[in-house]
Amino acid sequence: MLEDTLKRMKKAQTFLANASNDLKNRALDAVAEMLNKNRDNILKQNGLDLENAARENLPDPIIKRLKFDNQKMDVVIDGIRGLMRLEDPANKVIFKRELDDGLILTRLSVPIGVIGVIFESRPDALVQIATLCIKSGNGAILKGGREAAHTNRILADLIVKAITDVDKLFADTVFLIETREDVAEIITFNKYISLIIPRGSNEFVQYIQKNSTIPVLGHADGICHVYFDRTLDLDKAVKIAVDSKTQYVSVCNAAETFLVHKEIAGQLLPVLNKALKAKGVNVKGCARTKKIIPDIEDATDKDWKTEYLDYIISIKIVDTIDDAIDHINTYGSGHTDAIVTLDNDSARKFRELVDTANVMVNCSTRFSDGYRYGFGAEVGVSTNK
Amino acid sequence: MLEDTLKRMKKAQTFLANASNDLKNRALDAVAEMLNKNRDNILKQNGLDLENAARENLPDPIIKRLKFDNQKMDVVIDGIRGLMRLEDPANKVIFKRELDDGLILTRLSVPIGVIGVIFESRPDALVQIATLCIKSGNGAILKGGREAAHTNRILADLIVKAITDVDKLFADTVFLIETREDVAEIITFNKYISLIIPRGSNEFVQYIQKNSTIPVLGHADGICHVYFDRTLDLDKAVKIAVDSKTQYVSVCNAAETFLVHKEIAGQLLPVLNKALKAKGVNVKGCARTKKIIPDIEDATDKDWKTEYLDYIISIKIVDTIDDAIDHINTYGSGHTDAIVTLDNDSARKFRELVDTANVMVNCSTRFSDGYRYGFGAEVGVSTNK
Repeated sequence: MLEDTLKRMKKAQTFLANASNDLKNRALDAVAEMLNKNRDNILKQNGLDLENAARENLPDPIIKRLKFDNQKMDVVIDGIRGLMRLEDPANKVIFKRELDDGLILTRLSVPIGVIGVIFESRPDALVQIATLCIKSGNGAILKGGREAAHTNRILADLIVKAITDVDKLFADTVFLIETREDVAEIITFNKYISLIIPRGSNEFVQYIQKNSTIPVLGHADGICHVYFDRTLDLDKAVKIAVDSKTQYVSVCNAAETFLVHKEIAGQLLPVLNKALKAKGVNVKGCARTKKIIPDIEDATDKDWKTEYLDYIISIKIVDTIDDAIDHINTYGSGHTDAIVTLDNDSARKFRELVDTANVMVNCSTRFSDGYRYGFGAEVGVSTNK
Repeated sequence: MLEDTLKRMKKAQTFLANASNDLKNRALDAVAEMLNKNRDNILKQNGLDLENAARENLPDPIIKRLKFDNQKMDVVIDGIRGLMRLEDPANKVIFKRELDDGLILTRLSVPIGVIGVIFESRPDALVQIATLCIKSGNGAILKGGREAAHTNRILADLIVKAITDVDKLFADTVFLIETREDVAEIITFNKYISLIIPRGSNEFVQYIQKNSTIPVLGHADGICHVYFDRTLDLDKAVKIAVDSKTQYVSVCNAAETFLVHKEIAGQLLPVLNKALKAKGVNVKGCARTKKIIPDIEDATDKDWKTEYLDYIISIKIVDTIDDAIDHINTYGSGHTDAIVTLDNDSARKFRELVDTANVMVNCSTRFSDGYRYGFGAEVGVSTNK
């Protein structure tokens, strides 16, 4: 049964892969219109999910994510309009070279294929992922959080209806699956699916990585650092620290450890401690840090390995920038690491030697984000090489 | 023990990753000089391997690959000089964008890290891989074939000596391992190694893919097709067919199946059959093919799935280009597939709908090669998305 659907999806994706930008944009426009016209229905279905969530006493942050109101709908529809304005990422000639007389080599960007995305309980994520896949020519198998089942179902139905109205051949490009059994099944179909993107907890990503025969785009940890160099702008340093730690604590690009050069520690730590405490952050530190700001908890080796995803920070004093780099390369997850410095040589050294995907210089780790980089919304994150 | 070496390699690779093009070229130049000066020693060690091979009655093709004479040495040294002329692939600014006032996003090309390459019994491959890794800023763990043990050992020793003379910090960027136990051990060290490239048999690649916790760049099959369209240049068609099948049968980009449009079959097949037979190819065909050229063997469903790597071809008549595309997308390995046609619409359709890494239009499948594309030698091949 599922295999038949996947076969059809693979075929439909080949059509989508070669659809013109104009046709894909008309499909996206139809989705935006369809969602806009069906706000009441969507809100009603979302209401059912919210009732269930209340009955099950789900925690507030989940309910907040689950709620799909008119404001979120506006954001989602705006997002689709923005996507329509982006240039077509598919079938772009990356380069062309004449190898010999009459022998021409052309490299084209091509879609990946059918992608399975398993995401958390945010219904807006479903719309983002589906529309990004349409724009980029990829088939989308979507599995959302169980809590959002009613909302996801109506959203997927409306999206499929909208794009099928534009062209029947779009019908099998987007497909919603609803059970864990379906997930366990699809991750074995490497014949039809080219990529799995699991979002969610470390355990979940690792489960998928271990059990999938399909390449997995995912990352397990986000242990991000900010290193405060010998010379820096104190005011900027505190702002970057507070933003990196507290702007949104439960995400992978939030900072978990601050490394502080011993020569700036005396000046920086008291101000930093105050600013963090004002935001409700539980500050932990190494023995040397505690000598300067004694009203904090002990940080142990375990802290350097911990992704708190919470209002907790660990602080360590280092003797040199090399020690900071060593610490990051030992305990970091290769996601995002920042340096705050006035010294160009330090910035260059940090950039060159820290083994991480995103190096920030005098900038919050929170800026590490596909949307902020101007690449459209993110579907998944990988720290693989 | 091995872990200590890997730790040192990871550190040395960080140095290599940031070495200037000039320094890396000086290291490559030193390697070329060192090999040139030590031709006699290398040939002597290769002689030991050849004696062992003779004693063990190894097949001729292996002995041919194993033999490292002055001519192969010239090619290898020329290759290094060519590598020196290539622009530095590392630390190139891919793009730069000002996101906001004073907030600049820069994307850089960076080396992968430490790479483990397991390759067959060609000692020249050791030199190619090591020097490509140096040029691109990647650490190289090398494991060659057991048959070439003496040759590989002296080549690795000379390379390490040459680059260490240029800068001591190069010392741990290249490392030879010699046993299967070492291979089994390194593929678990995802902390120090970023990529494994296994070359060799399907079974071997699959063993590595199943047992490695490190991303693997490898491919299992190379089932390549040539489709002969309704209208074509008969003479060119036969040349492309013969080259695709016979130019080098034991490689992954050799053709294994020809698909022939029913309207051209009557004209093409007799000529094609004659040309293939003249090259000693065992021709197999579907029932319709046998009606036109009866002096061939039957091809069954198993043939469409078989990578012969030999002087054998399977031929199938198809009613339409769509049938040909369906066949390729069902049985192909996504490596290289060719169309021979005079019709631009057919060429475009084939290019768009065949799900393969390399699409050839009026060109032999054998051209699918990094070196022929002008990208330098190939270290490995992947048909993953």
